[in-house]
Amino acid sequence: MKIAVLGTGMVGRTLAGRLTRLGHEVRVGTRDVATTLARTDPDGMGNPPYPQWARRHPEVALTTFTEAVADADLVVNATHGEASIAALTAAGERHLAGKVLLDTANPLDFSQGFPPRLLVADTDSLGERIQAAFPELKVVKALNTLTAELMVNPEAVAAGEHTVFVAGNDSEAKATVTGLLESFGHTDVIDLGDLTGARGTEMLLPLWLRLMGTLDTPMFQFRIVR
Amino acid sequence: MKIAVLGTGMVGRTLAGRLTRLGHEVRVGTRDVATTLARTDPDGMGNPPYPQWARRHPEVALTTFTEAVADADLVVNATHGEASIAALTAAGERHLAGKVLLDTANPLDFSQGFPPRLLVADTDSLGERIQAAFPELKVVKALNTLTAELMVNPEAVAAGEHTVFVAGNDSEAKATVTGLLESFGHTDVIDLGDLTGARGTEMLLPLWLRLMGTLDTPMFQFRIVR
Repeated sequence: MKIAVLGTGMVGRTLAGRLTRLGHEVRVGTRDVATTLARTDPDGMGNPPYPQWARRHPEVALTTFTEAVADADLVVNATHGEASIAALTAAGERHLAGKVLLDTANPLDFSQGFPPRLLVADTDSLGERIQAAFPELKVVKALNTLTAELMVNPEAVAAGEHTVFVAGNDSEAKATVTGLLESFGHTDVIDLGDLTGARGTEMLLPLWLRLMGTLDTPMFQFRIVR
Repeated sequence: MKIAVLGTGMVGRTLAGRLTRLGHEVRVGTRDVATTLARTDPDGMGNPPYPQWARRHPEVALTTFTEAVADADLVVNATHGEASIAALTAAGERHLAGKVLLDTANPLDFSQGFPPRLLVADTDSLGERIQAAFPELKVVKALNTLTAELMVNPEAVAAGEHTVFVAGNDSEAKATVTGLLESFGHTDVIDLGDLTGARGTEMLLPLWLRLMGTLDTPMFQFRIVR
Protein backbone atom coordinates (compact mmCIF):
# COMPACT_ATOMS: atom_id res chain seq x y z
CA MET A 1 0.00 0.00 0.00
CA LYS A 2 0.92 3.64 -0.30
CA ILE A 3 0.91 4.86 3.29
CA ALA A 4 1.15 8.39 4.65
CA VAL A 5 2.48 8.67 8.19
CA LEU A 6 1.73 12.07 9.70
CA GLY A 7 4.20 13.03 12.41
CA THR A 8 7.97 12.78 12.71
CA GLY A 9 8.19 11.76 16.38
CA MET A 10 9.10 8.33 17.69
CA VAL A 11 5.70 6.83 16.85
CA GLY A 12 5.80 8.11 13.27
CA ARG A 13 9.36 6.96 12.73
CA THR A 14 8.80 3.53 14.23
CA LEU A 15 5.68 2.91 12.16
CA ALA A 16 7.25 4.31 8.99
CA GLY A 17 10.31 2.09 9.40
CA ARG A 18 8.30 -1.06 10.00
CA LEU A 19 5.82 -0.35 7.20
CA THR A 20 8.70 0.19 4.79
CA ARG A 21 10.29 -3.12 5.78
CA LEU A 22 6.92 -4.78 5.15
CA GLY A 23 7.08 -3.53 1.56
CA HIS A 24 4.77 -0.53 1.76
CA GLU A 25 5.59 2.74 0.06
CA VAL A 26 5.77 5.21 2.91
CA ARG A 27 5.78 8.98 3.00
CA VAL A 28 6.21 10.78 6.30
CA GLY A 29 4.32 14.05 6.43
CA THR A 30 5.41 17.08 8.40
CA ARG A 31 4.27 20.69 8.63
CA ASP A 32 7.41 22.17 7.17
CA VAL A 33 9.96 19.88 5.54
CA ALA A 34 12.85 22.35 5.67
CA THR A 35 12.33 23.00 9.38
CA THR A 36 12.16 19.28 10.18
CA LEU A 37 15.31 18.60 8.14
CA ALA A 38 17.14 21.47 9.84
CA ARG A 39 16.66 20.03 13.34
CA THR A 40 19.84 19.19 15.18
CA ASP A 41 18.60 18.91 18.78
CA PRO A 42 16.75 16.02 20.42
CA ASP A 43 12.97 16.50 20.63
CA GLY A 44 11.01 17.14 23.85
CA MET A 45 11.02 13.41 24.63
CA GLY A 46 14.79 13.14 24.23
CA ASN A 47 14.63 11.39 20.85
CA PRO A 48 17.34 12.22 18.33
CA PRO A 49 16.39 14.80 15.69
CA TYR A 50 14.55 13.51 12.63
CA PRO A 51 17.42 13.95 10.15
CA GLN A 52 19.51 11.50 12.14
CA TRP A 53 16.79 8.85 11.75
CA ALA A 54 16.16 9.82 8.12
CA ARG A 55 19.79 9.20 7.13
CA ARG A 56 19.36 5.56 8.16
CA HIS A 57 16.02 5.33 6.28
CA PRO A 58 16.67 6.90 2.89
CA GLU A 59 13.76 4.95 1.39
CA VAL A 60 11.25 6.91 3.53
CA ALA A 61 10.36 10.20 1.87
CA LEU A 62 9.73 13.27 3.99
CA THR A 63 7.06 15.52 2.49
CA THR A 64 4.43 18.06 3.47
CA PHE A 65 1.24 16.70 5.02
CA THR A 66 -0.56 17.32 1.72
CA GLU A 67 1.99 15.55 -0.44
CA ALA A 68 2.05 12.63 1.96
CA VAL A 69 -1.70 11.99 1.86
CA ALA A 70 -2.46 13.05 -1.74
CA ASP A 71 -2.22 9.59 -3.31
CA ALA A 72 -2.01 7.47 -0.15
CA ASP A 73 -4.19 4.39 0.27
CA LEU A 74 -4.06 4.70 4.04
CA VAL A 75 -3.13 7.52 6.42
CA VAL A 76 -1.60 7.06 9.87
CA ASN A 77 -2.05 9.83 12.43
CA ALA A 78 1.12 9.72 14.51
CA THR A 79 1.05 13.38 15.54
CA HIS A 80 0.61 14.58 19.10
CA GLY A 81 -3.06 14.61 20.02
CA GLU A 82 -3.08 18.36 20.47
CA ALA A 83 -1.75 18.86 16.92
CA SER A 84 -3.77 16.17 15.13
CA ILE A 85 -6.67 18.22 13.82
CA ALA A 86 -4.34 20.99 12.62
CA ALA A 87 -2.14 18.43 10.84
CA LEU A 88 -5.13 16.83 9.11
CA THR A 89 -6.47 20.25 8.19
CA ALA A 90 -3.09 21.10 6.67
CA ALA A 91 -3.17 17.81 4.74
CA GLY A 92 -6.44 18.96 3.20
CA GLU A 93 -9.94 17.59 3.65
CA ARG A 94 -10.35 16.81 -0.05
CA HIS A 95 -7.22 14.62 -0.02
CA LEU A 96 -8.52 12.71 2.98
CA ALA A 97 -12.06 12.05 1.76
CA GLY A 98 -12.84 8.33 1.58
CA LYS A 99 -9.49 7.26 3.04
CA VAL A 100 -8.79 5.11 6.07
CA LEU A 101 -7.13 6.90 8.97
CA LEU A 102 -5.34 4.76 11.54
CA ASP A 103 -5.42 7.15 14.53
CA THR A 104 -2.73 6.34 17.09
CA ALA A 105 -2.83 9.70 18.90
CA ASN A 106 -3.92 10.45 22.45
CA PRO A 107 -5.39 13.75 23.64
CA LEU A 108 -2.60 14.45 26.11
CA ASP A 109 -1.59 17.88 27.36
CA PHE A 110 2.10 18.00 28.25
CA SER A 111 2.05 21.75 29.00
CA GLN A 112 1.90 21.17 32.77
CA GLY A 113 4.81 18.71 32.73
CA PHE A 114 4.78 14.99 33.36
CA PRO A 115 2.50 13.09 33.62
CA PRO A 116 0.46 14.77 30.90
CA ARG A 117 -3.23 15.34 31.43
CA LEU A 118 -5.99 13.85 29.34
CA LEU A 119 -7.85 16.63 27.51
CA VAL A 120 -10.97 14.64 26.65
CA ALA A 121 -12.69 12.02 28.74
CA ASP A 122 -15.67 9.72 28.85
CA THR A 123 -18.23 11.64 26.79
CA ASP A 124 -15.92 12.29 23.85
CA SER A 125 -12.56 11.25 22.43
CA LEU A 126 -9.91 12.56 20.08
CA GLY A 127 -10.87 9.84 17.61
CA GLU A 128 -14.46 11.09 17.52
CA ARG A 129 -13.34 14.71 17.26
CA ILE A 130 -11.25 13.87 14.21
CA GLN A 131 -14.18 11.95 12.72
CA ALA A 132 -16.50 14.92 13.34
CA ALA A 133 -14.03 17.34 11.75
CA PHE A 134 -13.50 15.08 8.69
CA PRO A 135 -16.76 13.22 8.10
CA GLU A 136 -15.52 11.57 4.89
CA LEU A 137 -12.48 10.07 6.59
CA LYS A 138 -12.80 6.49 7.87
CA VAL A 139 -11.25 6.86 11.31
CA VAL A 140 -10.04 3.71 13.07
CA LYS A 141 -8.63 4.18 16.55
CA ALA A 142 -5.83 1.73 17.21
CA LEU A 143 -2.32 1.35 18.67
CA ASN A 144 -2.82 4.23 21.12
CA THR A 145 -2.43 1.94 24.15
CA LEU A 146 1.17 0.75 23.86
CA THR A 147 4.67 2.06 23.30
CA ALA A 148 5.89 2.57 19.72
CA GLU A 149 8.36 -0.32 19.77
CA LEU A 150 5.62 -2.77 20.79
CA MET A 151 3.22 -1.42 18.16
CA VAL A 152 5.42 -2.87 15.43
CA ASN A 153 7.28 -5.58 17.34
CA PRO A 154 4.78 -7.21 19.71
CA GLU A 155 7.02 -10.27 20.21
CA ALA A 156 9.38 -8.11 22.25
CA VAL A 157 7.18 -8.66 25.33
CA ALA A 158 5.53 -11.90 26.52
CA ALA A 159 6.11 -13.57 23.13
CA GLY A 160 3.52 -11.20 21.67
CA GLU A 161 0.74 -12.56 23.88
CA HIS A 162 -1.07 -9.29 24.54
CA THR A 163 -3.97 -7.30 23.20
CA VAL A 164 -4.59 -4.36 20.89
CA PHE A 165 -7.92 -2.73 20.10
CA VAL A 166 -9.67 -1.27 17.07
CA ALA A 167 -12.68 1.04 17.17
CA GLY A 168 -14.34 2.73 14.21
CA ASN A 169 -17.58 3.24 12.33
CA ASP A 170 -16.52 1.56 9.07
CA SER A 171 -16.14 -2.23 9.15
CA GLU A 172 -14.05 -2.42 6.01
CA ALA A 173 -11.65 0.22 7.33
CA LYS A 174 -11.35 -1.73 10.59
CA ALA A 175 -10.60 -4.90 8.62
CA THR A 176 -7.83 -3.05 6.73
CA VAL A 177 -6.30 -1.77 9.97
CA THR A 178 -6.66 -5.17 11.64
CA GLY A 179 -4.79 -6.73 8.72
CA LEU A 180 -2.01 -4.19 9.16
CA LEU A 181 -1.79 -4.92 12.90
CA GLU A 182 -1.61 -8.64 12.18
CA SER A 183 1.18 -8.00 9.67
CA PHE A 184 3.11 -6.39 12.55
CA GLY A 185 2.66 -9.62 14.53
CA HIS A 186 -0.37 -8.83 16.68
CA THR A 187 -2.43 -11.93 17.35
CA ASP A 188 -5.16 -10.57 19.64
CA VAL A 189 -6.99 -7.62 18.06
CA ILE A 190 -10.27 -6.86 19.84
CA ASP A 191 -12.90 -4.96 17.86
CA LEU A 192 -14.53 -2.56 20.33
CA GLY A 193 -17.27 -1.60 17.91
CA ASP A 194 -17.94 1.94 16.74
CA LEU A 195 -15.65 4.89 17.30
CA THR A 196 -17.06 5.69 20.73
CA GLY A 197 -14.88 2.73 21.77
CA ALA A 198 -11.95 5.15 21.42
CA ARG A 199 -13.03 6.76 24.70
CA GLY A 200 -12.06 3.72 26.71
CA THR A 201 -8.71 3.21 25.01
CA GLU A 202 -7.74 6.89 25.31
CA MET A 203 -8.74 6.80 28.98
CA LEU A 204 -6.33 3.92 29.48
CA LEU A 205 -3.47 6.41 29.18
CA PRO A 206 -3.42 7.65 32.80
CA LEU A 207 -3.00 4.03 33.99
CA TRP A 208 -0.46 3.36 31.23
CA LEU A 209 1.59 6.40 32.28
CA ARG A 210 1.45 5.36 35.93
CA LEU A 211 2.52 1.82 35.10
CA MET A 212 5.42 3.12 33.02
CA GLY A 213 6.63 4.91 36.16
CA THR A 214 5.98 1.97 38.48
CA LEU A 215 7.54 -0.64 36.20
CA ASP A 216 10.27 1.81 35.11
CA THR A 217 9.86 0.85 31.46
CA PRO A 218 7.41 1.45 28.61
CA MET A 219 7.95 -2.17 27.50
CA PHE A 220 4.79 -3.64 28.99
CA GLN A 221 1.38 -4.33 27.59
CA PHE A 222 -2.22 -5.04 28.50
CA ARG A 223 -3.44 -8.53 27.83
CA ILE A 224 -7.14 -9.21 28.08
CA VAL A 225 -7.43 -12.71 29.53
CA ARG A 226 -10.80 -14.46 29.21
CA MET B 1 -9.81 -9.67 61.26
CA LYS B 2 -13.06 -7.93 62.03
CA ILE B 3 -14.16 -6.57 58.68
CA ALA B 4 -16.98 -4.18 57.84
CA VAL B 5 -18.33 -4.43 54.32
CA LEU B 6 -20.38 -1.37 53.39
CA GLY B 7 -22.96 -2.12 50.73
CA THR B 8 -25.37 -4.99 50.11
CA GLY B 9 -25.02 -5.29 46.33
CA MET B 10 -23.23 -8.07 44.48
CA VAL B 11 -19.75 -6.72 45.29
CA GLY B 12 -20.52 -6.46 49.01
CA ARG B 13 -22.09 -9.92 49.14
CA THR B 14 -19.31 -11.58 47.18
CA LEU B 15 -16.60 -10.04 49.33
CA ALA B 16 -18.50 -10.71 52.56
CA GLY B 17 -19.01 -14.36 51.65
CA ARG B 18 -15.39 -14.94 50.72
CA LEU B 19 -14.01 -13.06 53.73
CA THR B 20 -16.22 -15.15 56.00
CA ARG B 21 -14.98 -18.38 54.43
CA LEU B 22 -11.42 -17.14 55.03
CA GLY B 23 -12.22 -16.96 58.75
CA HIS B 24 -12.81 -13.24 59.14
CA GLU B 25 -15.63 -11.88 61.27
CA VAL B 26 -17.74 -9.93 58.82
CA ARG B 27 -20.47 -7.38 59.27
CA VAL B 28 -22.30 -6.00 56.27
CA GLY B 29 -23.38 -2.41 56.75
CA THR B 30 -26.46 -0.86 55.19
CA ARG B 31 -28.29 2.44 55.55
CA ASP B 32 -31.44 0.94 57.02
CA VAL B 33 -31.41 -2.68 58.14
CA ALA B 34 -35.21 -3.09 58.20
CA THR B 35 -35.56 -1.75 54.65
CA THR B 36 -32.83 -4.01 53.33
CA LEU B 37 -34.35 -7.05 55.04
CA ALA B 38 -37.80 -6.19 53.69
CA ARG B 39 -36.65 -6.31 50.05
CA THR B 40 -38.36 -8.92 47.90
CA ASP B 41 -37.52 -7.67 44.38
CA PRO B 42 -34.27 -8.02 42.45
CA ASP B 43 -32.05 -4.93 42.54
CA GLY B 44 -31.40 -2.61 39.58
CA MET B 45 -28.71 -4.98 38.28
CA GLY B 46 -31.07 -7.97 38.39
CA ASN B 47 -29.49 -9.52 41.47
CA PRO B 48 -31.79 -11.33 43.91
CA PRO B 49 -32.83 -9.30 46.95
CA TYR B 50 -30.40 -9.27 49.88
CA PRO B 51 -32.55 -11.42 52.23
CA GLN B 52 -32.34 -14.30 49.78
CA TRP B 53 -28.52 -14.16 49.93
CA ALA B 54 -28.55 -13.58 53.70
CA ARG B 55 -30.51 -16.76 54.36
CA ARG B 56 -27.65 -18.76 52.82
CA HIS B 57 -25.07 -16.78 54.84
CA PRO B 58 -26.43 -16.69 58.39
CA GLU B 59 -22.91 -16.10 59.76
CA VAL B 60 -22.76 -12.65 58.11
CA ALA B 61 -24.42 -10.04 60.30
CA LEU B 62 -26.37 -7.21 58.70
CA THR B 63 -26.08 -3.98 60.69
CA THR B 64 -26.16 -0.23 60.25
CA PHE B 65 -23.07 1.41 58.72
CA THR B 66 -22.07 2.65 62.19
CA GLU B 67 -22.39 -0.73 63.90
CA ALA B 68 -20.49 -2.39 61.09
CA VAL B 69 -17.46 -0.10 61.33
CA ALA B 70 -17.45 0.63 65.08
CA ASP B 71 -15.02 -2.13 66.11
CA ALA B 72 -13.83 -3.21 62.66
CA ASP B 73 -10.13 -3.64 61.91
CA LEU B 74 -10.68 -2.97 58.23
CA VAL B 75 -13.52 -1.40 56.25
CA VAL B 76 -14.48 -2.31 52.69
CA ASN B 77 -16.32 0.25 50.60
CA ALA B 78 -18.58 -1.79 48.33
CA THR B 79 -21.25 0.86 47.87
CA HIS B 80 -22.03 2.52 44.55
CA GLY B 81 -19.59 5.34 43.88
CA GLU B 82 -22.33 7.94 43.99
CA ALA B 83 -23.36 6.78 47.46
CA SER B 84 -19.93 6.18 48.98
CA ILE B 85 -19.32 9.48 50.77
CA ALA B 86 -22.85 9.45 52.21
CA ALA B 87 -22.38 5.88 53.44
CA LEU B 88 -19.07 6.71 55.11
CA THR B 89 -20.57 9.85 56.61
CA ALA B 90 -23.40 7.75 58.03
CA ALA B 91 -20.84 5.31 59.44
CA GLY B 92 -19.32 8.21 61.36
CA GLU B 93 -15.97 9.89 60.92
CA ARG B 94 -14.87 9.12 64.48
CA HIS B 95 -15.42 5.39 63.93
CA LEU B 96 -13.35 5.48 60.75
CA ALA B 97 -10.38 7.43 62.08
CA GLY B 98 -7.14 5.46 61.77
CA LYS B 99 -8.76 2.54 59.95
CA VAL B 100 -7.88 1.02 56.60
CA LEU B 101 -10.50 1.46 53.89
CA LEU B 102 -10.36 -0.89 50.93
CA ASP B 103 -12.21 1.21 48.35
CA THR B 104 -13.64 -0.91 45.52
CA ALA B 105 -16.12 1.69 44.23
CA ASN B 106 -16.15 3.52 40.93
CA PRO B 107 -17.61 6.99 40.34
CA LEU B 108 -20.20 5.80 37.82
CA ASP B 109 -23.45 7.57 37.04
CA PHE B 110 -26.14 5.11 35.95
CA SER B 111 -28.85 7.77 35.77
CA GLN B 112 -28.62 8.04 31.96
CA GLY B 113 -28.80 4.29 31.44
CA PHE B 114 -26.12 1.89 30.26
CA PRO B 115 -23.20 2.30 29.87
CA PRO B 116 -22.84 4.50 32.94
CA ARG B 117 -20.74 7.64 32.74
CA LEU B 118 -17.65 8.32 34.76
CA LEU B 119 -18.26 11.26 37.10
CA VAL B 120 -14.63 12.06 37.86
CA ALA B 121 -11.68 11.85 35.50
CA ASP B 122 -7.96 12.49 35.24
CA THR B 123 -7.46 15.34 37.72
CA ASP B 124 -9.32 13.66 40.58
CA SER B 125 -10.78 10.31 41.61
CA LEU B 126 -13.39 8.93 43.94
CA GLY B 127 -10.62 7.44 46.06
CA GLU B 128 -9.05 10.86 46.55
CA ARG B 129 -12.43 12.45 47.26
CA ILE B 130 -13.05 9.91 50.01
CA GLN B 131 -9.56 10.52 51.40
CA ALA B 132 -10.15 14.30 51.36
CA ALA B 133 -13.49 13.89 53.14
CA PHE B 134 -12.02 11.53 55.77
CA PRO B 135 -8.39 12.57 56.30
CA GLU B 136 -7.86 10.07 59.16
CA LEU B 137 -8.96 7.12 57.05
CA LYS B 138 -6.24 5.13 55.26
CA VAL B 139 -7.79 4.78 51.83
CA VAL B 140 -6.46 2.03 49.57
CA LYS B 141 -7.99 1.84 46.11
CA ALA B 142 -8.16 -1.75 44.91
CA LEU B 143 -10.41 -4.31 43.19
CA ASN B 144 -12.31 -1.66 41.23
CA THR B 145 -11.11 -3.03 37.87
CA LEU B 146 -12.70 -6.49 37.75
CA THR B 147 -16.01 -8.23 38.28
CA ALA B 148 -16.98 -9.30 41.81
CA GLU B 149 -16.57 -13.04 41.17
CA LEU B 150 -12.99 -12.54 39.97
CA MET B 151 -12.15 -10.29 42.92
CA VAL B 152 -12.44 -13.26 45.26
CA ASN B 153 -11.88 -16.15 42.85
CA PRO B 154 -9.14 -15.09 40.43
CA GLU B 155 -8.49 -18.68 39.35
CA ALA B 156 -11.81 -18.64 37.49
CA VAL B 157 -10.09 -16.95 34.52
CA ALA B 158 -6.69 -17.78 32.96
CA ALA B 159 -5.67 -19.81 36.02
CA GLY B 160 -5.50 -16.57 37.99
CA GLU B 161 -2.75 -15.13 35.78
CA HIS B 162 -3.91 -11.54 35.72
CA THR B 163 -3.29 -8.29 37.53
CA VAL B 164 -4.85 -6.20 40.29
CA PHE B 165 -3.70 -2.80 41.52
CA VAL B 166 -3.36 -1.00 44.84
CA ALA B 167 -2.96 2.75 45.28
CA GLY B 168 -2.86 4.65 48.56
CA ASN B 169 -0.89 7.08 50.70
CA ASP B 170 -0.19 4.68 53.60
CA SER B 171 2.29 1.87 52.92
CA GLU B 172 1.19 -0.23 55.87
CA ALA B 173 -2.45 0.01 54.79
CA LYS B 174 -1.45 -1.05 51.28
CA ALA B 175 0.45 -4.01 52.72
CA THR B 176 -2.67 -5.06 54.67
CA VAL B 177 -4.85 -4.84 51.57
CA THR B 178 -2.25 -6.62 49.43
CA GLY B 179 -2.21 -9.45 51.96
CA LEU B 180 -5.99 -9.69 51.73
CA LEU B 181 -5.86 -9.78 47.91
CA GLU B 182 -3.25 -12.53 48.06
CA SER B 183 -5.45 -14.49 50.45
CA PHE B 184 -8.12 -14.37 47.72
CA GLY B 185 -5.62 -15.94 45.31
CA HIS B 186 -4.24 -12.89 43.51
CA THR B 187 -0.61 -13.38 42.51
CA ASP B 188 0.13 -10.14 40.63
CA VAL B 189 -0.65 -7.08 42.75
CA ILE B 190 0.92 -3.92 41.32
CA ASP B 191 1.47 -1.02 43.72
CA LEU B 192 0.70 2.14 41.75
CA GLY B 193 2.03 4.42 44.47
CA ASP B 194 0.03 7.12 46.17
CA LEU B 195 -3.73 7.51 45.92
CA THR B 196 -3.56 9.58 42.74
CA GLY B 197 -2.99 6.17 41.13
CA ALA B 198 -6.73 5.62 41.65
CA ARG B 199 -7.36 7.98 38.73
CA GLY B 200 -5.96 5.52 36.22
CA THR B 201 -7.78 2.51 37.62
CA GLU B 202 -11.12 4.33 37.82
CA MET B 203 -10.61 5.54 34.23
CA LEU B 204 -10.22 1.93 33.17
CA LEU B 205 -13.97 1.48 33.64
CA PRO B 206 -15.12 2.81 30.25
CA LEU B 207 -12.86 0.25 28.51
CA TRP B 208 -13.94 -2.44 30.97
CA LEU B 209 -17.62 -1.74 30.26
CA ARG B 210 -17.01 -1.80 26.51
CA LEU B 211 -15.12 -5.07 26.74
CA MET B 212 -17.92 -6.60 28.79
CA GLY B 213 -20.26 -5.82 25.89
CA THR B 214 -17.83 -6.97 23.18
CA LEU B 215 -16.86 -10.20 24.96
CA ASP B 216 -20.42 -10.70 26.21
CA THR B 217 -19.22 -11.59 29.70
CA PRO B 218 -17.78 -9.85 32.77
CA MET B 219 -15.48 -12.83 33.29
CA PHE B 220 -12.33 -11.30 31.78
CA GLN B 221 -9.39 -9.52 33.28
CA PHE B 222 -6.47 -7.23 32.52
CA ARG B 223 -3.05 -8.81 32.75
CA ILE B 224 -0.04 -6.54 32.63
CA VAL B 225 2.59 -8.47 30.70
CA ARG B 226 6.19 -7.25 30.96
